Amino acid sequence: MTDNYKLSDYLLDVVKYMGSDDIFGVPGDYNLQLLDHITHRPDLSWKGNANELNASYMADGYAREKGFATFITTFGVGELSAINGLSGSIAEHVPVLEIVGAPTNKVQNNGSLVHHTFGDHNFDRFEKAHRALGIKSARLDSENAINQINEVAKYIYETKNPAYIILPTNLVEMEVNKSLQNDIQNLFTKDTIISDKSEKQIVSAINNSKSPVIIMGHEVDRFNVFDDIKSFASNNNIPVLDLGLGKGNIDESFDNFVGTYNGQISDEDINKYVENADTVILVGARLTDSVTGGFTQQFDESNTIVLNYDNARIYGKDVDSDYNFKNIINALSTTKLEISLNAVNGNNKEIELTPSNNTLTQSFYDNAIQNFASKNNTIVAEQGTSFFGLADKRMPKGAKFFGQPLWGSIGYAFPASLGSQIANKNRRVVLSTGEGSLQLTIQELGLAFREKLNPIMFVIENSGYTVERVIHGMTEPYNDVPKLNYGLMPQAFGAKEDEYDFIEVSTEKELLDAMATAKEETDKFVLIQVNMAVKDVPTQLAKTATAFANQNK
Amino acid sequence: MTDNYKLSDYLLDVVKYMGSDDIFGVPGDYNLQLLDHITHRPDLSWKGNANELNASYMADGYAREKGFATFITTFGVGELSAINGLSGSIAEHVPVLEIVGAPTNKVQNNGSLVHHTFGDHNFDRFEKAHRALGIKSARLDSENAINQINEVAKYIYETKNPAYIILPTNLVEMEVNKSLQNDIQNLFTKDTIISDKSEKQIVSAINNSKSPVIIMGHEVDRFNVFDDIKSFASNNNIPVLDLGLGKGNIDESFDNFVGTYNGQISDEDINKYVENADTVILVGARLTDSVTGGFTQQFDESNTIVLNYDNARIYGKDVDSDYNFKNIINALSTTKLEISLNAVNGNNKEIELTPSNNTLTQSFYDNAIQNFASKNNTIVAEQGTSFFGLADKRMPKGAKFFGQPLWGSIGYAFPASLGSQIANKNRRVVLSTGEGSLQLTIQELGLAFREKLNPIMFVIENSGYTVERVIHGMTEPYNDVPKLNYGLMPQAFGAKEDEYDFIEVSTEKELLDAMATAKEETDKFVLIQVNMAVKDVPTQLAKTATAFANQNK
Repeated sequence: MTDNYKLSDYLLDVVKYMGSDDIFGVPGDYNLQLLDHITHRPDLSWKGNANELNASYMADGYAREKGFATFITTFGVGELSAINGLSGSIAEHVPVLEIVGAPTNKVQNNGSLVHHTFGDHNFDRFEKAHRALGIKSARLDSENAINQINEVAKYIYETKNPAYIILPTNLVEMEVNKSLQNDIQNLFTKDTIISDKSEKQIVSAINNSKSPVIIMGHEVDRFNVFDDIKSFASNNNIPVLDLGLGKGNIDESFDNFVGTYNGQISDEDINKYVENADTVILVGARLTDSVTGGFTQQFDESNTIVLNYDNARIYGKDVDSDYNFKNIINALSTTKLEISLNAVNGNNKEIELTPSNNTLTQSFYDNAIQNFASKNNTIVAEQGTSFFGLADKRMPKGAKFFGQPLWGSIGYAFPASLGSQIANKNRRVVLSTGEGSLQLTIQELGLAFREKLNPIMFVIENSGYTVERVIHGMTEPYNDVPKLNYGLMPQAFGAKEDEYDFIEVSTEKELLDAMATAKEETDKFVLIQVNMAVKDVPTQLAKTATAFANQNK
Repeated sequence: MTDNYKLSDYLLDVVKYMGSDDIFGVPGDYNLQLLDHITHRPDLSWKGNANELNASYMADGYAREKGFATFITTFGVGELSAINGLSGSIAEHVPVLEIVGAPTNKVQNNGSLVHHTFGDHNFDRFEKAHRALGIKSARLDSENAINQINEVAKYIYETKNPAYIILPTNLVEMEVNKSLQNDIQNLFTKDTIISDKSEKQIVSAINNSKSPVIIMGHEVDRFNVFDDIKSFASNNNIPVLDLGLGKGNIDESFDNFVGTYNGQISDEDINKYVENADTVILVGARLTDSVTGGFTQQFDESNTIVLNYDNARIYGKDVDSDYNFKNIINALSTTKLEISLNAVNGNNKEIELTPSNNTLTQSFYDNAIQNFASKNNTIVAEQGTSFFGLADKRMPKGAKFFGQPLWGSIGYAFPASLGSQIANKNRRVVLSTGEGSLQLTIQELGLAFREKLNPIMFVIENSGYTVERVIHGMTEPYNDVPKLNYGLMPQAFGAKEDEYDFIEVSTEKELLDAMATAKEETDKFVLIQVNMAVKDVPTQLAKTATAFANQNK
């Protein structure tokens, strides 16, 4: 025990091994000692956020790029501020770990009336609130702390779900055996699981179909099985689509990929693949309202094979219980079906754009973003006009795309895009958001400039919450937002003059010019204010909004 | 039923009656219909916030001034973003109602995979999380909605605790009988409660004491019993103190008031009143770490009479169960004790300040704020150097003061101060915060300028979280925050040039000059950046920090 190796060192070694080179969060007096162990080692970087909700969003964006993220809050106030962000990670299945610095076990056992509690001697409330949301939690105790940490790490690795560790300050400096370091890698060894029976059932069902299509959901990204699906589809000429809740770190450029499905409101040439199919193979997908044009998909259990990470059903019937998601998908990658299908040509071509001096429209903008995106870009779309306009755009090879269509917490996209940028400096993030959403989390501009990040940020200025206007209250004042001055924001939040560029565009030509400038200014934070008409919305949003409005009756 | 009177109208009539002339919140597609009923009536004003946490803070500040506040969020994402703020209202006993717009009962019953859920058919999680925190909740259903609303309203009125109503969108336009309006006032009639036995026990105990003092806590403000205590103290020459968690809408200028107690780290002349007392009468008080110099009070159950809203104990023994807080305090107001004490002279005088051109110190600043405060000011102090420096300052007659010392959620004070300003336009709010805290919630500057508010805002710029530095990690980078440019913030957030003044001060003289200017510029938002040294902290914070650091071991 002379190694001076502490419990906090072990915890940080685990998260480092899992992929956290950067750790987000906000300091508080119950987590300061833990933070020492981050700032005192060269292989971890502390990324202090402006607030905890932003930290949780940024961690989520980081995890979508890097497969895992960690953020740290303080007890009570901090963890509750972040709980919406962590809930988004649950909803959209993003592996994020939150570590909460808590009062000492002694203070808790004494029921002391310390700050960041309700002053009622109760120290369980906050963990209970997290558990009510279904968050895996571990409150570390001195005797079992190592096992508790290992259990949480394995849980995240296996399920790709978020989790939450409560670390009382007295355990931060508890000495543990340094040789534990050597066992960390063993936490993540894969079990060999044989799932013969369910595999046979699934392959047989597909063989019996005549015109299958595959629709990929978000679990394909999270469990990193895209390449297997691509092989399976290519080997057997099966058309592949994804969902808005399914785009991510996957390649939409391969031949069998025919587009992003959004229920019946999809473009006709996309929709026909699904309408003509006798069997829809849903892989890791969740058919939520925002990504099905408001539940307008034209298939149901009777013609669907569902392959999810935690369950599989063939035409409404569960498969054998030996089912294992990754194994099956892996097996499919080399399966040659008995059926014979025609080759698919996904028609992956650039959209022709002839820019005019006309006022910019949402439609032109969305197409321009598709053309603009290149192989090292990650497009992040806020859940408003941005997401609904961009979700069906085809991303070129290498480009990535994400939004948050199920959880749909406005304000998410900006910090998440910075998280993604931090996770991989070799890529360049392109954010599309609106002024209504940006205001929720705008203070992370401070971090962006402190960290000298260089994303390209499009802010659609259309005088308020346009996504809400088309659902209800088109001219109601509650859908207005204060008119901010985006040109002043970078310097207000600490940018030096030569660290950023601000461009305001109102016409098609101006937009394309600004895009060209942004591509050239590779080292700068480029903020482009995109002025659009109040009522101009993407076609798919207009249709979805009607469905949403009906849902609310 | 031809009145076209809807359930939402009734709900809004109730909150209006309870004191909500303004309603805070963020629109979302599950609450838009409800918002129509606010914007379509002239006696309610919708105050749209930049995000939900800010809304909850602003509502809390409004309720501290006006006795009640309401804010509205959407399901899942909105309510979870606000849950930290609502928890602060629980901890510090502030009556705030949150109304959550939720999916229709049909959508919930069908378990539809709609957005703002985890996509798992479960619509109970968020309410359960709130209940885990001890928040009173009601999920309105069509058959019992009126009774459910009434029950919540009475609960808030009687306990002064926050509560939370879930309103499915299909109930918003449900017709109800308009005559229900007439009964709203009856919800808040006081029961006549006789509490003879406990009153006799309490008076007898005080009569048996020789040198009692009264320490007032926050419930004195929340239950509006200050005048009764003042009478009781004045009639019987009892010295009165308050706690940092006790300052509020109370008058600290009366003769018997001797100061704000903070355990043994209080100023000697304050502490002696408590040390010399044989009985401490704690009224509506909670002895939390932040307001007792880290639990350094020199009394315990054996010499304490506790009179709280929900319990009373004399020297550690419960009083008779007929105890009723408001009744007893009311009875005491006219009680003439048998003991005879000397008159108290609270020594309420202005501090002499001789400003120099020296670099400004925290100590000078705190004294200057005390002198600056006048009868129509409400001083709001953020839980950092601001609160610890200002909590023991004596407020002049008419001036009010609040912070959030128990919950201590940084970022709270700025939105809360705006809420207080909105609640009473005849007062002028004076905010003291720091750059570390302000960044968490700074986007409400947009609301401040949209609403043309005129507070005076002091932002202490001392290069980071100084309150954390003195607890742990004085020079650690995690206690740094990005360097923002406050002079640009007003215009960045929508202010016109003539709507605000920005002044930066670094010396004592500059501070007093800026204060004089701020007093003159009554119609403007005045933002004063106060530069101070990194390590300069109020004496009481230095002492408290040591206690906090020990607590964390």
